[in-house]
Amino acid sequence: MTAHISSARTERLFEILSRGSSSTCLITDLSDIRWLTGFSGSQGWLVIHVNQMFLLTDGRYTEQARAEIDAQQANVEVIECRTQLAMIAATKSLTQGSSVIQFQDSHVSYQLFRLLQTELNASLMPIDASSKFLRRIKDEAEIKIIESACRIADRALAHCRSLLSQGLTECEVRNELDHAMRKFGADGPSYDTIVASGPINASRPHHQPTTTKIESGHTVIIDVGALVSGYHSDMTRSFVVGPMSAEQSEWYEAVVAAQQAGVAACQPGVLASEVDAACRKVLIEAGLEQYFTHGTGHGVGLLIHEEPFINSSATAILQPGDVVTVEPGLYRGGFGGFRVEDLVVITEHGCRSLNSSPKDPTCPPLQLTT
Amino acid sequence: MTAHISSARTERLFEILSRGSSSTCLITDLSDIRWLTGFSGSQGWLVIHVNQMFLLTDGRYTEQARAEIDAQQANVEVIECRTQLAMIAATKSLTQGSSVIQFQDSHVSYQLFRLLQTELNASLMPIDASSKFLRRIKDEAEIKIIESACRIADRALAHCRSLLSQGLTECEVRNELDHAMRKFGADGPSYDTIVASGPINASRPHHQPTTTKIESGHTVIIDVGALVSGYHSDMTRSFVVGPMSAEQSEWYEAVVAAQQAGVAACQPGVLASEVDAACRKVLIEAGLEQYFTHGTGHGVGLLIHEEPFINSSATAILQPGDVVTVEPGLYRGGFGGFRVEDLVVITEHGCRSLNSSPKDPTCPPLQLTT
Repeated sequence: MTAHISSARTERLFEILSRGSSSTCLITDLSDIRWLTGFSGSQGWLVIHVNQMFLLTDGRYTEQARAEIDAQQANVEVIECRTQLAMIAATKSLTQGSSVIQFQDSHVSYQLFRLLQTELNASLMPIDASSKFLRRIKDEAEIKIIESACRIADRALAHCRSLLSQGLTECEVRNELDHAMRKFGADGPSYDTIVASGPINASRPHHQPTTTKIESGHTVIIDVGALVSGYHSDMTRSFVVGPMSAEQSEWYEAVVAAQQAGVAACQPGVLASEVDAACRKVLIEAGLEQYFTHGTGHGVGLLIHEEPFINSSATAILQPGDVVTVEPGLYRGGFGGFRVEDLVVITEHGCRSLNSSPKDPTCPPLQLTT
Repeated sequence: MTAHISSARTERLFEILSRGSSSTCLITDLSDIRWLTGFSGSQGWLVIHVNQMFLLTDGRYTEQARAEIDAQQANVEVIECRTQLAMIAATKSLTQGSSVIQFQDSHVSYQLFRLLQTELNASLMPIDASSKFLRRIKDEAEIKIIESACRIADRALAHCRSLLSQGLTECEVRNELDHAMRKFGADGPSYDTIVASGPINASRPHHQPTTTKIESGHTVIIDVGALVSGYHSDMTRSFVVGPMSAEQSEWYEAVVAAQQAGVAACQPGVLASEVDAACRKVLIEAGLEQYFTHGTGHGVGLLIHEEPFINSSATAILQPGDVVTVEPGLYRGGFGGFRVEDLVVITEHGCRSLNSSPKDPTCPPLQLTT
């Protein structure tokens, strides 16, 4: 499944370039390169000069690049460069006549900047800050792919949920989730799948699975997404194995209510910080906001974390085609934690959730095998 | 399994810092931070000032960071910073009194450099180029972990080899390899596992697995490694399903001979480019060198690609404790390709291979099921 690249994408870039003093530019963000050309390799630069596009990459990728670009009907010439110095020399030769080259200052190291400055016969100007938002608004083809990735993660979670009561380790549950996503058609997990259980591990928002066994009474956080054609999905569900304590119920209900409030706030024209505030308001009222130690969400696309970010200082205004997570969580060492997360797409009149996993946190107690 | 961090590591860093005009520095390479402190999160800076170390990270990671640093008995204070601006402010406050701060110019974007330059009361000086080699020489504990990762990949390949004759797709074989590595104790694959088959896909050195079915007569390249405690392994084997053609035999033998020549050249005191030349010499004599379109190898450790690199222009001199791949390959569109790769550790008197997978390329013809 691929998203065919519309000329609207290059037009979006040219519009941003027109805010600078040159239409010549060097694109070094590999996600932007993929979005503009279809090329999915791990090494390459895209040079744009007088409305022509050139992809510079090494010998591992030239054949693949030509095939991927052809499949997208993108009009890009592939040039093989074996070393970074060869890439700089090719950039210099291809941009002859341009006294200014725009570049992506957050995707060029200071070391490379100094090298380009020395070698190129042109001034380097950071591209307009709006380029950070180049890939932000997803088109229909992209949303379809992300939705298919969400469905795969939903299926994998449904398939593996019963494992939580079988005395397995966090790693074993993670292994089965990742294997299931691939069986259901994913290229892989879209990030390191999180399975975090018990009073210590589940209190760490970005815990990495360990050989800790999942036990009765433990809270368990599962954060899982699928990768499909370069696009990511992202979802979290939380569980308690066996009967829930009063405090577990109180915390879980607060998190679900906060998440629902956040999703309800996801509408076109709304400030991203207002979505964060909507989640926090519920948790403040529950007297638990101090345990919500991270931001509310982020955009998802060719990167798992991209614009727009949703936190207390976020200034983006949500627009139709934004695909964002809403994922409040509560964590306390010695207790554990809960997080509930959906991926939503902003529509003309509100938003639509792309996940459909149920939010029932209960699991049977451990089934002891003899 | 973890490698306990010896004080020799911080001493190696201080020795490099002593070549600059300040002992104050900002470490932004996450692999270096992990190597120096044990912290494995995806966001953080390490500030070093007057022999004190401070880890700045966000709320997702503070608890984890403290636990990981304690486990390593590293002497590092963890400071929570919710935003990049908070990290810059903390760096400014912690480095009071230092007029020069050394920084990692290949791990700081031009945009961040400009921000640091504006906000800090100090001059920023790129750290000495030898810092690129900070983690290069592996200690015994690191080699043990890498060796265990190699054994896991060996086992997974042995477990999955028979699948090549069962009419599966590249993706299906990849899925089983990755799942097997985890069952055998890996945290995951150490990079995107490559299964590349047939005249087109196997001619692309960094092909990503597709739904192409593996067929009789096809060459198949499998490039697979395991991740264990942050350390990577890396191995490639090549196969032919069913009887080999004369040309396939000729190419395969040339690749194996080139790989053996490369491994034989891996000795302390040898220039990395000589290892590349040793591989190429065999392929030149076979009249096939034009089809060897990439470098011969690279270091492996906390990154899958790190110093020292092995190619025709590499200037590193191999030393005991270097862990490097030797991986010549031949590729031709319409024919397919072969690559054979082992991970070796340089010893006092030569090198030792860390992989033990056999190099027999033959596979039974497709078993047609009814």
